[in-house]
Order: sequence, then structure tokens, then C-alpha cells
Amino acid sequence: MDNLLSYIPFSSSLSEEEGKEVLNNIKSLSFKKGEKVNPAGECSGFIIIHSGQLKVYSLSEDGREITLFRLFERDLCIFTASCLLKDIDFSVNILSEEDSECVLIPTFIVDKIRRKNIGVSSYICSVLSVHLSDLMWLIDQILNKRLDSRLAAYLCEEADLKGTYSLKITHEEAAHHLGSRREVITRTLSYLEKEGEVELRRGEIEIKNIERLSLRAKDSLR
Amino acid sequence: MDNLLSYIPFSSSLSEEEGKEVLNNIKSLSFKKGEKVNPAGECSGFIIIHSGQLKVYSLSEDGREITLFRLFERDLCIFTASCLLKDIDFSVNILSEEDSECVLIPTFIVDKIRRKNIGVSSYICSVLSVHLSDLMWLIDQILNKRLDSRLAAYLCEEADLKGTYSLKITHEEAAHHLGSRREVITRTLSYLEKEGEVELRRGEIEIKNIERLSLRAKDSLR
Repeated sequence: MDNLLSYIPFSSSLSEEEGKEVLNNIKSLSFKKGEKVNPAGECSGFIIIHSGQLKVYSLSEDGREITLFRLFERDLCIFTASCLLKDIDFSVNILSEEDSECVLIPTFIVDKIRRKNIGVSSYICSVLSVHLSDLMWLIDQILNKRLDSRLAAYLCEEADLKGTYSLKITHEEAAHHLGSRREVITRTLSYLEKEGEVELRRGEIEIKNIERLSLRAKDSLR
Repeated sequence: MDNLLSYIPFSSSLSEEEGKEVLNNIKSLSFKKGEKVNPAGECSGFIIIHSGQLKVYSLSEDGREITLFRLFERDLCIFTASCLLKDIDFSVNILSEEDSECVLIPTFIVDKIRRKNIGVSSYICSVLSVHLSDLMWLIDQILNKRLDSRLAAYLCEEADLKGTYSLKITHEEAAHHLGSRREVITRTLSYLEKEGEVELRRGEIEIKNIERLSLRAKDSLR
């Protein structure tokens, strides 16, 4: 059980006593690919990812999704402890994008420790700061970038994450990810296919020219 | 000089020694309406607003603006100390929207105190958290809300801030604020005028029916 502590990104800031308290209250959590992680608004505690991948997304009234953050191994999910965070009171959705193994540090432990431990408080600050930066980037993406660049960036990111150029992504999923509509994604993908950058198959997008696609992602084609 | 401390939102967390250190290094700053507050990327320190109003905005490559945050009396501007914040390394622009009186706590003082003082660290966390929440709201606005609602919300907010229904706002300014284009704003304003909610004059927008405009801002008309 001791080595669970090593998964906690702020473990080096914990006193021996705090470490014990965390270990006595930590819980293991497993999520299947596609499983919802947290009922919206539930404030169970910090989730730390051992393995797998979580997606934090927002859902509009008309059912459109936009991915706000993606969390990977050793990342800390603060949105499952939103009651501890000032003004983070609206509901985000969290989904496990892969089979994920996580641990949960319950809210009351996090709250107790962050009030006394400056290392933990600073760590939470740094997570908030990185997220703030992510959202500023996202707003820039939404407002300024053409959809073909954003889609190219998404495909390159997926290829990198999955380690393959054959991506099992539906047009619907890409639309959700980019806060767009399926028809628009289909049109943009067809354009990328004509340009020889991808090949479209049923339920699959094959990257044919990663160099050009990466250039497009960087917004430097044309 | 002592009462300058009372303007600092986290002053109650400061030890006597820290309070003295802050007072010995604090600087008064005045900005004229329309003046740039900070060369982008400069990391001078935390700015706290006595009186007036600052706007933090992002600028796209093609020159469009979008307002990210508006800061008012007693608000702390963290973006002028971005070197202290993890990953907040890209440049935002800061403009004084009114004549503003502020104080600056230099970066080295902020950095020293936040590393030791959990009250200050928590306060910075709460500011980051509120900003994160603001941006999540903004993304929701951009993606989901119709421009007429967003424009109505902006006009209502301005009327509330200025205490008048005669708003000296150009279409250009409204477009900047909402990350839109002037032509689109002009079209939307004409629509609002036809609906009897505003009257358009040269360089001025007069609110004629605040109840309907507020309803529209809440997205509940039609």
C-alpha cells in the first residue's frame, strides 16, 4: 500500500503523519473505457490517475460537447473536488477515455491538508494555473483558428497518444471534441482527404501524410 | 502609508514583518482611461486596484480582441506577475478601462511571501479558481449562446457599471469585447433596435427597454 503514495504528485510535501492519513483514507478506483467518472457536481475528492486517460468536458444545452481538459498518468483531477475550489460550482462532465486505474483522496483529507501544508497548496495553485492557461489557449483556438487546423491538431495529438496512424475516431467524436457539428467535420475531413493528408474508412481515419497534417496543425499551410 | 495595506485583499494573512516588507516595497500606479497597463510578458508584480477598472484581453493574429476578465476595485491582477504562475507564459494584454489608481507589489516580494504564507498561497489559489470558472463560462458563452444574447448581456452589464442607459460604446468596441466583427455587431444591434430594445445614435447606444434586454441576456426571449 505504501507505494500508492508515490503516485501522488505532491507526496514529497507531505509530513509523515499526513502521509499516513492519506494512505489510511485513499481509495482505488477503476473505470472502464467510456465510463462516466463522476456524477456532475459530486464532490468526492481529488482523483489521481495511475494509468489510463480522463476527459473533462462541458455540455451545452443542445447536447454539444467540448473537451476542456485531458488528464493523463499522474495527473490530478481537481474537478471531482470542486466544492473546495472557489466558484467552480457548475457541473463539468468527466469520462474515462481508456480503461483507467485511479486513486481517490477524499475531500475532507484534501481540505485538511491544504489548509496547513504550503507545498500542497502551491501544488493545487500550479494545477489551477496550468488549467487556466489551457483554457486561454482553447479560447484562442475557438476564436482564431480555422477548423481544418484544429482538426489536424486533434488528429496529430491522437496519433501521438495512440501510437498509430489508423485512428478509430468517428466524425461524431471529432465534432464533440472540437465543439463543432458532425456535418462540418465530415466536410473538413473530405477536404483533408482531397489534400492527401488522410484517408477515410468506415469508423476509421488513416493519416497518410503526417508532415503536411502537422504543418496544417501549426496553421502554416497556405 | 499604513492604510495602503488595507487595500490588499490578503492583508489579514500577513505577519507584522511581512506587512512591513510589503509596505516598504509597494508602489502606487496611476493609469489613464485607455492606457496600456503592462507591456505583454512583463512580470512586474501583483497589481491591486484601488479605484477604476482593468480589462484583461487576448488578441488574435488578425487583430481581433476578446475580453477574458474585467477587474474592479480591490481585485488582484495576477497576470502582471505571470512569471510566478505555472504555464501562464503567453501574453495577455491589460488595459485601463477607466482612470485607475492601483498599487503594485513587486514580484520578488510576492514570490517570497507566497512560499511561506499559506493564507497568501490560498488566496492566489482562489483567484486562479475564480478565473478558471470565468473562462469556463466564457467558453460556454462563445459556443452555445447566440450573439444577440451575449450582446444584450454586455449592454446590461455596461449600463449597470456606468449607472446610465446612454452607453458610449462604438460597434467596434462591442465587437472587440465579444470576439466578433463590427459588421456582425451592427447587424445584431439593428435587430435589437427593431425590437425596440435599444436606439442607435452616433457613438452611442441608448437602452430603451431594459426588461426585454435583460430577458434576452438570460436567453429567454423567443
